[in-house]
Amino acid sequence: MRDRKLVLAEVPVPEPGPSEVLVRTLACGICGSDLHALKHADRMVEAGRRAGNPRVMDLARDVVMGHEFCAEIVDHGPSTTRALAGGTRVCSRPTLVRAGGPQSIGYSNDNPGGYGEYMRLSEALVLPVPNGLSTDHAALTEPMAVGVHAVAKARLAADDAPLVIGCGPVGLAVIAALRLAGCEPIVAADFSPRRRDLAATLGAHVVVDPANGSVWEQRPGGRTPVVFECVGVPGMLDQTMAAAPRGARVVVVGVCMEPDTIHPLLGIMKELNLQFVLGYTPDEFAATLRHIAEGAIPVAPLITGHVGLDGVARAFEELGSPERHAKVLVHPHG
Amino acid sequence: MRDRKLVLAEVPVPEPGPSEVLVRTLACGICGSDLHALKHADRMVEAGRRAGNPRVMDLARDVVMGHEFCAEIVDHGPSTTRALAGGTRVCSRPTLVRAGGPQSIGYSNDNPGGYGEYMRLSEALVLPVPNGLSTDHAALTEPMAVGVHAVAKARLAADDAPLVIGCGPVGLAVIAALRLAGCEPIVAADFSPRRRDLAATLGAHVVVDPANGSVWEQRPGGRTPVVFECVGVPGMLDQTMAAAPRGARVVVVGVCMEPDTIHPLLGIMKELNLQFVLGYTPDEFAATLRHIAEGAIPVAPLITGHVGLDGVARAFEELGSPERHAKVLVHPHG
Repeated sequence: MRDRKLVLAEVPVPEPGPSEVLVRTLACGICGSDLHALKHADRMVEAGRRAGNPRVMDLARDVVMGHEFCAEIVDHGPSTTRALAGGTRVCSRPTLVRAGGPQSIGYSNDNPGGYGEYMRLSEALVLPVPNGLSTDHAALTEPMAVGVHAVAKARLAADDAPLVIGCGPVGLAVIAALRLAGCEPIVAADFSPRRRDLAATLGAHVVVDPANGSVWEQRPGGRTPVVFECVGVPGMLDQTMAAAPRGARVVVVGVCMEPDTIHPLLGIMKELNLQFVLGYTPDEFAATLRHIAEGAIPVAPLITGHVGLDGVARAFEELGSPERHAKVLVHPHG
Repeated sequence: MRDRKLVLAEVPVPEPGPSEVLVRTLACGICGSDLHALKHADRMVEAGRRAGNPRVMDLARDVVMGHEFCAEIVDHGPSTTRALAGGTRVCSRPTLVRAGGPQSIGYSNDNPGGYGEYMRLSEALVLPVPNGLSTDHAALTEPMAVGVHAVAKARLAADDAPLVIGCGPVGLAVIAALRLAGCEPIVAADFSPRRRDLAATLGAHVVVDPANGSVWEQRPGGRTPVVFECVGVPGMLDQTMAAAPRGARVVVVGVCMEPDTIHPLLGIMKELNLQFVLGYTPDEFAATLRHIAEGAIPVAPLITGHVGLDGVARAFEELGSPERHAKVLVHPHG
């Protein structure tokens, strides 16, 4: 990302610092947040600053995005244990552990992400890809962990009724995590037929086209709905608050980067609860990788395309249409 | 409220229906929600309609507001048990139990509230005022129950740090309820010196003038702040979300009737939780009346004025200034 556009450019190979490894990116998923970040980079920086983040991006400098990756170890920096040999395929949370605090990989001027050929990772955070798990499937660990975390934060009770609004990659990850947690029935909604098919494939029991029926009518009588808002565009929150029944909980997983208008009185009248979520814990990330390796979280249906580095900008455009793609993987080395 | 203005008018004495009693209003507190409702009546109706409330106010017809009352029984309607004799002083939630579902008292064209001389109440809901408790203090049951409910909905853990933003009647009720629950320290903030004094009187351990220091710095290190937003004007929610640390919970008690803009990304980056609250349960209401009677919830300091029916409109205006009044009681019969 240079001058708020995606460009293909030569940049220096990053140097691994103490306790860091240099890795070669094998596959990196394109995340909806990156599409948002490209479009709303200034809002992302502004919110980061308001939230007190000391390390926001400088948009005048290059940013190599990409935070859903599988890579192989190429070199070890100083003070590493070298527990994993060169050539080992690994996943990692997109975070560098540094003395001054954690730093982002992928939303950073200094720490290039997986749309580049090389990255540096913290040795303490890398997890070896289990034998037999494909590189492409391992790269889905990060987005699927988002679903696992959202479901954990929802603290579902046995008689809660989960509703997933929006079946893009985030909604699909939530559906897979709900299925893994044994929730039933899982109700999901999306305007796109393609995405509704994927929702059913990932484990939704009831799939609704909002144009033809209300998702709210599908929940079993009397159960408290727990809505996973996985769309992340302005207006969705207010629309959800207006439609939700009294006492409903809304887990906000979709990342809306623009200012958004709500009517607090709707929340008050119905005593709604909004739980905003982000990311995952280290344990959730590691467990997700295991679940994918064991087939408990299906990821194959999500992968709808592959591109080289020269195809990233076009893939960003194509991902705007819900009919064509769910997850596109970048293979920086072809 | 006639044509969105307060007027003093003769209206028919309401007739008690089956299982209802006719009561004479002895005292009725003026609530900030009534000030908001007068100013934003159309928004209240619109939100009620969007939320699916089948019985919203018709603003072309009269509304007798007032929902914080103590009254005495005058007459019994058909099919009543007459368990409480005429002349008994009672409190009640401002709700009528009807076959078609509950109906509001005070925000209704058909069920006059406590700014009128007479009301009808559901016999099943009236609670006798304990011997020795003054009528004025009993009338504070309703607003203090709002605080008891908000604290219950917050589900405070032992190491949570409660912060009360805004020390009008709602914030003061929350402070009293936190004190009753044994929370320590209770940190409270308000720009008004008068309200800060009341906060300390009601039980706040630390009272902050936001003009001179951050309420956020007052919480004991490491504790999760649970913020009670008791201001209820546009912008407060976003301001709270920007200032709150990661993982904070916000209990929205203040009633903002206007559309409000938030930056969802602030909530996401910090995994904030927003719990909107309204009213109280029947048990909380009854318990609050007992707590007031036993002196466990102090209410005397809140009462800063009394008016007759001809003083209600002026009191509404004066309540706009935080320095003069906390709670003004209407005595419809002088």
